[in-house]
Amino acid sequence: MRKAKAGDMVLLLGQDRKSFIRTLRPGEEFQTHRGILHHDSLIGQPLGAQVNTHLGYPFFLLTPTTEELVRGIRRKSQIVFPKDAGYIVLRLGVQPGSVVVEAGTGSGALTSVFAFQVGESGHVYSYDVREDMQSMARSNLRRFGLEDRVTLIERDIAEGFDPHESGCLFLDLVKPWDYLDQARAALAGGGMLGSLVPTANQLVRLITALEDHPDFAFVEAEELSLRRWKTIPGRVRPSDRMVAHTGFLIFARAVIPLAEETNDSA
Amino acid sequence: MRKAKAGDMVLLLGQDRKSFIRTLRPGEEFQTHRGILHHDSLIGQPLGAQVNTHLGYPFFLLTPTTEELVRGIRRKSQIVFPKDAGYIVLRLGVQPGSVVVEAGTGSGALTSVFAFQVGESGHVYSYDVREDMQSMARSNLRRFGLEDRVTLIERDIAEGFDPHESGCLFLDLVKPWDYLDQARAALAGGGMLGSLVPTANQLVRLITALEDHPDFAFVEAEELSLRRWKTIPGRVRPSDRMVAHTGFLIFARAVIPLAEETNDSA
Amino acid sequence: MRKAKAGDMVLLLGQDRKSFIRTLRPGEEFQTHRGILHHDSLIGQPLGAQVNTHLGYPFFLLTPTTEELVRGIRRKSQIVFPKDAGYIVLRLGVQPGSVVVEAGTGSGALTSVFAFQVGESGHVYSYDVREDMQSMARSNLRRFGLEDRVTLIERDIAEGFDPHESGCLFLDLVKPWDYLDQARAALAGGGMLGSLVPTANQLVRLITALEDHPDFAFVEAEELSLRRWKTIPGRVRPSDRMVAHTGFLIFARAVIPLAEETNDSA
Amino acid sequence: MRKAKAGDMVLLLGQDRKSFIRTLRPGEEFQTHRGILHHDSLIGQPLGAQVNTHLGYPFFLLTPTTEELVRGIRRKSQIVFPKDAGYIVLRLGVQPGSVVVEAGTGSGALTSVFAFQVGESGHVYSYDVREDMQSMARSNLRRFGLEDRVTLIERDIAEGFDPHESGCLFLDLVKPWDYLDQARAALAGGGMLGSLVPTANQLVRLITALEDHPDFAFVEAEELSLRRWKTIPGRVRPSDRMVAHTGFLIFARAVIPLAEETNDSA
Repeated sequence: MRKAKAGDMVLLLGQDRKSFIRTLRPGEEFQTHRGILHHDSLIGQPLGAQVNTHLGYPFFLLTPTTEELVRGIRRKSQIVFPKDAGYIVLRLGVQPGSVVVEAGTGSGALTSVFAFQVGESGHVYSYDVREDMQSMARSNLRRFGLEDRVTLIERDIAEGFDPHESGCLFLDLVKPWDYLDQARAALAGGGMLGSLVPTANQLVRLITALEDHPDFAFVEAEELSLRRWKTIPGRVRPSDRMVAHTGFLIFARAVIPLAEETNDSA
Repeated sequence: MRKAKAGDMVLLLGQDRKSFIRTLRPGEEFQTHRGILHHDSLIGQPLGAQVNTHLGYPFFLLTPTTEELVRGIRRKSQIVFPKDAGYIVLRLGVQPGSVVVEAGTGSGALTSVFAFQVGESGHVYSYDVREDMQSMARSNLRRFGLEDRVTLIERDIAEGFDPHESGCLFLDLVKPWDYLDQARAALAGGGMLGSLVPTANQLVRLITALEDHPDFAFVEAEELSLRRWKTIPGRVRPSDRMVAHTGFLIFARAVIPLAEETNDSA
Repeated sequence: MRKAKAGDMVLLLGQDRKSFIRTLRPGEEFQTHRGILHHDSLIGQPLGAQVNTHLGYPFFLLTPTTEELVRGIRRKSQIVFPKDAGYIVLRLGVQPGSVVVEAGTGSGALTSVFAFQVGESGHVYSYDVREDMQSMARSNLRRFGLEDRVTLIERDIAEGFDPHESGCLFLDLVKPWDYLDQARAALAGGGMLGSLVPTANQLVRLITALEDHPDFAFVEAEELSLRRWKTIPGRVRPSDRMVAHTGFLIFARAVIPLAEETNDSA
Repeated sequence: MRKAKAGDMVLLLGQDRKSFIRTLRPGEEFQTHRGILHHDSLIGQPLGAQVNTHLGYPFFLLTPTTEELVRGIRRKSQIVFPKDAGYIVLRLGVQPGSVVVEAGTGSGALTSVFAFQVGESGHVYSYDVREDMQSMARSNLRRFGLEDRVTLIERDIAEGFDPHESGCLFLDLVKPWDYLDQARAALAGGGMLGSLVPTANQLVRLITALEDHPDFAFVEAEELSLRRWKTIPGRVRPSDRMVAHTGFLIFARAVIPLAEETNDSA
C-alpha cells in the first residue's frame, strides 16, 4: 500500500468536489473552506484514504493526474484545456523522448503537459516575449518538478526560433500566421505544426496563410467539445451548462515541395 | 536533415489525403491506388519530401504521429478514437514510467496509445478473454515496436487481475459494472478507474454501480465531440458530416473509506 | 410607420441586452435597473425607436417575437426552450388550424407556442394534474391574449384524455411511458406523439415502452444544441459557455397495425 | 376515424424508414423499391393503417408533418433544414397572420415553412433573381397547396424590395451584407432581420456589416446542432454519424436610432 510522504504533491478532494493540490511538508497546515488539515497527519496515510478536517469535513488524499494538475495551474492567461491538450499530444506525436517546440509559453499549462509526456529523455523549448509569463510558467514547472525538461526562452519569435529540427511545434499566439516562416525553419521535414486560436477571424486568417505557404501542406482544422454528465443514478443526464468553446485547433505538415527538394539534394 | 532509412515506419500521404503507413524494406514496392512507389526510391529521401508514383501522382513522405498510427490500426472491433484516447491519457495520468492496466485489449488501439506514452520505463498490462483479439493486438504492437512495453494476458477478468497496485486501470468492456471489485483490487489507493461505453443503458448501469460501490468515489461522466472544419480559404466552414458519437467516458477514484482505513491502520 | 399604442405588449431592450416585456397602459411607469420610463412617453413612439430613461439610459421599443415571449415567461417549473419548441412545432405539424393536445401544462411555455402557431382557427387542449401550474399557465396565456385558443383541463391523465382525435399530442411529464395507452386513445390514426425528457434513464424507459407498444411505430429520439456566438467584429467566436442540455426529444407515430385495422374495417 | 381521400397528400413510410410523399389520385399506382401500391387501395383506408405492397412489404399510411414535407422537398439548391426553420419561425415571430419577406427563394423550403405558419390570413413575399429557382419553388408550393399564400418576385434585390413594412425579413443569400440597406427599407421599425450563412468568412463579414449599420442593433449569431439517437431498447445511443453543420444563424433588429427618430418626429 502506497503512503503519502513528505515532499509528495497530493490532491485533496472534498465531498463537494472542491480540490486542492499541495506539496506535503512537515509542520505545515492546510486551511480549507471546511476546516484545517495538518500535513503531519496526512504524511504516512495511505493514498486514497479519507481524512477529516478538524471540523470533521471529509477529504480524500489522492495523487493528482495530469488533467488535475493542468486544470489547477496558476495562471495569468487563458490556458489550453486538458480536452485539447490530450488531443494535441497525440496529433503532434509527443511521446517519451520527443523534442517539442512551443510559442508562446503563457502560464505554462500546455508546456507542462508536453514536459510530462516527453519524460526525462525528451525536451521542451518554450518561447515567449513576455518575461512575466515565463516567470509564471517557471514557477508552475518548478512546482511540478519539470524544470529540467523545459528550456524557457524569452524572445520575440519574429527573430526566429533556434534551429531545433524538431518533429513538432505548437503556436499559441494571437497572430500565428505572422510566424510561419520561423516555425517552418525550426521544424524537421515532415514535422507537425499545431496551433490553437479562439476566434473565427483568426481561424480564417491562419488557414489562408497555411494554404498559401509552399512549405506547409495537409492543413486541418478541428474543434473539440466536452460535455459532462451528472452521475445521479436515477437521473443520469448531461450537465445543465458547459464550456461552449475553447479554441479552434489547426494542424499542418512541414513539407519539402518537389522544386525545393531537387535544389536541396543537388 | 532527417532522411528515411530502411526499417523506418513512414506515412505516405497523398494529395487526396489518402494515407498509408508502411515500414521501409529494401527491394519492396508499395502499390497505391495511384501508381507504384519503390521502397528503394524512398530510402534516403528527406522526410517531408514529395515523392511521385510511377504515374506521377504526388505523395509526401512523413513520420506518422500517434494519432495517425492509431487511426490506421488493423482492427477486428471498434477502436477507441484518438480524441478520446488523448483525453484518457491525461485523465488517467498516464506518463513516461506509468504502469497501466487495461481490459479488454480489443484490437490494441488504446493499448498502443498507452504503450507509446508510458515509454520504455513504464508498462502496460492488457487483459482479454479472446485469443483472436490478443493476437490481432499483438501484431499491431509488434508493428509499432511496442511489444516489450506490453504484457498481454489472456484471461476472463471475472477471475481477477494480478495485484498490480497500479495508478490507473481502464475498462473497455460490454459490462464493466460486473468487474468493479476486480478493478478495485488491482488499483492502488487513490488510483483512477476509466471506462468507455457506447450506450446510455450502459452509462446508467455503470454510473449506478460506481455510485453504489463503497471503494470508488468521485464518479464523473463525459462525452467528447470532434468536429472537423473545411480549410478552403474563402469558404472556411465545419464539415458537412461528423462522427456523432464514439462513447461515454466514465472516471472514478479508488478510495479507502474511513471505516476500512481505520481497520487498516489498526 | 407603426407606433406603439396603449394595450400593446412591447419589448424594451436595453443596450446591455437586458429585456423587459410590458403591456403599455396610460399613466403607468416602468422602473428599470437604469431609471424610469413613463408609459405615456412610450405610447405614440414609432416601433424600433430608441427611448431613454430619466437617467438617460437608452432602451429600444420593440414588438416581442415568439421566442422572446417564451423566454420571458413567468415560470414555476423548467420550461421547454425555444430551440426545442420551434422544432417540435414542425415535427408535430402544428400549423394554423391544428388541434394540439398536451400534458402537462407546466408554466405554459410550450402551450403558448402551440397557441400562437395554431392561430384563431386552431385549438390547444392542455392537461395538468396540478392546479397551481394551470393557474400560472392561465396567467401567462391571458397576458399573451391566448386564453381563447387554449382549454386548460385539470386532470390526472391516468384517467384518460378526452377523445380528441387530434393529429398531435405532446407529453412533457416525468413518466410519459405510463400514459401511452391514454395518449394513443386521444390521437387520430397516423398522429404524431412527441415527448421531452431530461434524463437518460427516462429516455431509455420511454424508447423501450414505445418500441414495445403495438400502436406506436417509427420511434425517433433527438437532441438539439444551441451555441451562441459573440458578435464582436474583429473577434467573432462562440460564447464561452452554453446550455449543455435541455432534454431529449422523442417522437413516434400512432399507427393501426394490420390485425387491428382488419377488425376495425370489418 | 379519419380516412384517406382522393386529393390528400399522404406520407407512405416503410418499415425501413424510407418515406414517400404522394397525392392520392384514383387510378394511379405508386411504385416503391418494395413493390406496388395502388392509390385506389389506399383511398378509404384509415390514416395510420398498415398497407402492404403487392410483394407484401408493409408501409404505413400517414399525413406528413411540416418537417417531413420540408425534408422531402424537391430541390436544386441546399435547403434550410427543419431544425433551423423551426427556430427561425420563433425567432422571427412568424405566426398566423404574419407578413414575411424573404430573399432568395431557392428551392422554396423555408418559403414553404413560412407559408404553412402564416396561414391563410398571412402572406409571404419571396424574391429571387433566378427564374429557374422560382419555378422550382412554385412547383413545390403548388404541390403543398400554398401558392395563394406566397407572392414570388423575380428581382435582384440590389434594386430594393417593395416597401413591405414587414415585421420580419429573412436573407438566405451568398452576400447578405450587400443588401442591408434594402432589407432595412422593407422592414417595419423594430422588425427582425434573420439570415443563414454556411461559412465562417460570411459569418464574420455579415456580423461586421450589421454591427456597423446604424439602423440595425442587437446582432446575435447562433448555431443549432441536431443529434439523432438510435432507439434500440437495450442499446440506446447517439447515431454514429450526424450532420455537423448546416449554417450559422444571424439575427438583428431594425431600429430607429435617436438622431433619426428626432428628425422623423419633427
